[in-house]
Amino acid sequence: MKKIILIPDSFKGTMSSGEICSAMEECIKKYLPRAEVISIPVADGGEGSVDSFLAALGGEKIEIPVKGPYMEDMTGFYGLIDGGTTAVIEMAAAAGLPLVGDKLHAEKTTTYGVGMLMADAAKRGCRKMIVGLGGSATNDFGTGAAAAAGVRFLDSGGKEFIPVGGTLSRIARIDISGLLPELKAMEIVTMCDIDNPLYGKTGAAYVFAPQKGADPEMVETLDRELRAVSEMVKQELGTDVSSLPGAGAAGGMGGGMVAFFGSRLQMGIETVLDTVDFDGLLKGTDLVFTGEGKIDSQSLRGKVVIGVARRAKKQKVPVAAIVGDIGDTIEGAYAEGVSGIFSINRVAVPFKEARERSKNDLILTVDNLLRFMTAFGLN
Amino acid sequence: MKKIILIPDSFKGTMSSGEICSAMEECIKKYLPRAEVISIPVADGGEGSVDSFLAALGGEKIEIPVKGPYMEDMTGFYGLIDGGTTAVIEMAAAAGLPLVGDKLHAEKTTTYGVGMLMADAAKRGCRKMIVGLGGSATNDFGTGAAAAAGVRFLDSGGKEFIPVGGTLSRIARIDISGLLPELKAMEIVTMCDIDNPLYGKTGAAYVFAPQKGADPEMVETLDRELRAVSEMVKQELGTDVSSLPGAGAAGGMGGGMVAFFGSRLQMGIETVLDTVDFDGLLKGTDLVFTGEGKIDSQSLRGKVVIGVARRAKKQKVPVAAIVGDIGDTIEGAYAEGVSGIFSINRVAVPFKEARERSKNDLILTVDNLLRFMTAFGLN
Repeated sequence: MKKIILIPDSFKGTMSSGEICSAMEECIKKYLPRAEVISIPVADGGEGSVDSFLAALGGEKIEIPVKGPYMEDMTGFYGLIDGGTTAVIEMAAAAGLPLVGDKLHAEKTTTYGVGMLMADAAKRGCRKMIVGLGGSATNDFGTGAAAAAGVRFLDSGGKEFIPVGGTLSRIARIDISGLLPELKAMEIVTMCDIDNPLYGKTGAAYVFAPQKGADPEMVETLDRELRAVSEMVKQELGTDVSSLPGAGAAGGMGGGMVAFFGSRLQMGIETVLDTVDFDGLLKGTDLVFTGEGKIDSQSLRGKVVIGVARRAKKQKVPVAAIVGDIGDTIEGAYAEGVSGIFSINRVAVPFKEARERSKNDLILTVDNLLRFMTAFGLN
Repeated sequence: MKKIILIPDSFKGTMSSGEICSAMEECIKKYLPRAEVISIPVADGGEGSVDSFLAALGGEKIEIPVKGPYMEDMTGFYGLIDGGTTAVIEMAAAAGLPLVGDKLHAEKTTTYGVGMLMADAAKRGCRKMIVGLGGSATNDFGTGAAAAAGVRFLDSGGKEFIPVGGTLSRIARIDISGLLPELKAMEIVTMCDIDNPLYGKTGAAYVFAPQKGADPEMVETLDRELRAVSEMVKQELGTDVSSLPGAGAAGGMGGGMVAFFGSRLQMGIETVLDTVDFDGLLKGTDLVFTGEGKIDSQSLRGKVVIGVARRAKKQKVPVAAIVGDIGDTIEGAYAEGVSGIFSINRVAVPFKEARERSKNDLILTVDNLLRFMTAFGLN
């Protein structure tokens, strides 16, 4: 085999996609020292997405002063790829959960700093922007980010303010005319791997706000605030995000990215595949290694393994999925282009034990598969 | 692929080797409907060994009246293969643990019926005999079997008797002159997968008698009895089995087979491989599937997977080992000729749960591997 692509998702809570790529590459070099190995650690939009893109494509990491979740001063960052023409921003860099420690108050935190990152990148002349959602400490519908980019929010007394999760219903007018022109004109893709709606029992507040510090009463409050802002953007901007899948991502920022920035929401893997020109890379490729922590019926909805397989199938490139657990009813994965699914589980032990040995087990699994292929002259 | 051999061990306590062959064959027929598939369910000498040989080679199952572990009347059986020239006997058929139910008394039970099976087969004209040890309820050093075949045991008063586990030390003379001539002349191979010595802390009594009903005191007694008989056969027959590996198999019957019948002890897998002419079958074979419940450093001692791999390696035939657990330090397996080791564990759950789903998981594992190979044109 002359060319192999590594494009795994992370094993959530166990191994990052970067670590997995490194482990796989080490194995492959042992059996196929002359093979070209292309590593694409997959970003899903959450923490580490910028680094993933930079690792896969190279580029520049820009650090600038921004505001944090509590409007405190801090240093944020984003990436520039494709010779500076595309910016990659992860909201976690300015509004992420790790930034607030145990000061969890979804009703008070802001995405303002994310908007500052977007504005800085836009002014720097990039022509396309990728914004990764995920891992946020906020529930402000992205109003903070919008405010930082020039959108004005006014209350019923005509007073301008920067809304947060607990004050969205105070918005009486939205003036989008001041939005930074560079951002208005730009193609903005929002990476968003969940399809929760903005509000309701499966919405942002009910599903995600508890991890951001909201008690049941606060969850109800935040849900009402999201309903209110949804009504308001419909009235003021003519955009209806009330039932948009993904609008509930990242404290409603999924909805805000559509409403304020005219962005489209896209699965992380599709964004990565487009950005790295995966279709182009597949030409002449003998084998693709992908993987995720667990492959199951959820995966078939279009997560990393299936996203990769669908494209590889079109060019008849074999795909080996190295995974943690294999769920039931994954027959469909084969139809989508996965050639083989190999679990790293080597002994019958509970997950608590399995995760401790996962990195070594992953290496042994890839090693074993390459050995096996070698026995058939596939080297 | 045109020709595939299936030669798995059982997954002890979970699936018989016959069940595994059937499951594997079903998978293979789906992807390679025209491939020749040869199924060799491996027998280790214990219960089911006769059926395994008959399933692999065809032949005749002979049922005859014999004596059971308590000299009760019962029906025993053995197999005739190779056109009736080779007999296959499993001692469990006349001295096995299931025959005594909860009447566990290793000091009282006899292998007499096993000798009856041997004698019957010998008189029927076979020229070679395979005797499988394992799963016995006895601790009589095979003296019962020897008595049934014509060996006379005399006490110090010159009185003939049939020794059992608790009376071995009463033997004062052994007269082997009456041994059935057909047995005396015959090549007898004893299948024996353990290498415990006859007596001592790792001997038959200490290691195995507790499962046969012996309490700690009785274990000591039985161990002394085995020491005594070892001294006696050395004195009377000139055969020293006191430190022979495997002599402690099946309540000392390993030692008795050597002392009374001039048999040689051999790993079950080697016996199977010789008997089915595995080397001949390998010619033109594209892939061998083998497997066992757990592959670990013990396996490297020469259990099924390694036994199979060593021969396949000589003819450069790839070997896929489908196993339950993969232990640590199994690197050596690859050097012995195993091309790939695939665990059927698909989810990180404890063995208690894993065993319940093992048959289905085995099928899915083989299915997955064949799909994967198909993607590389290996079909």
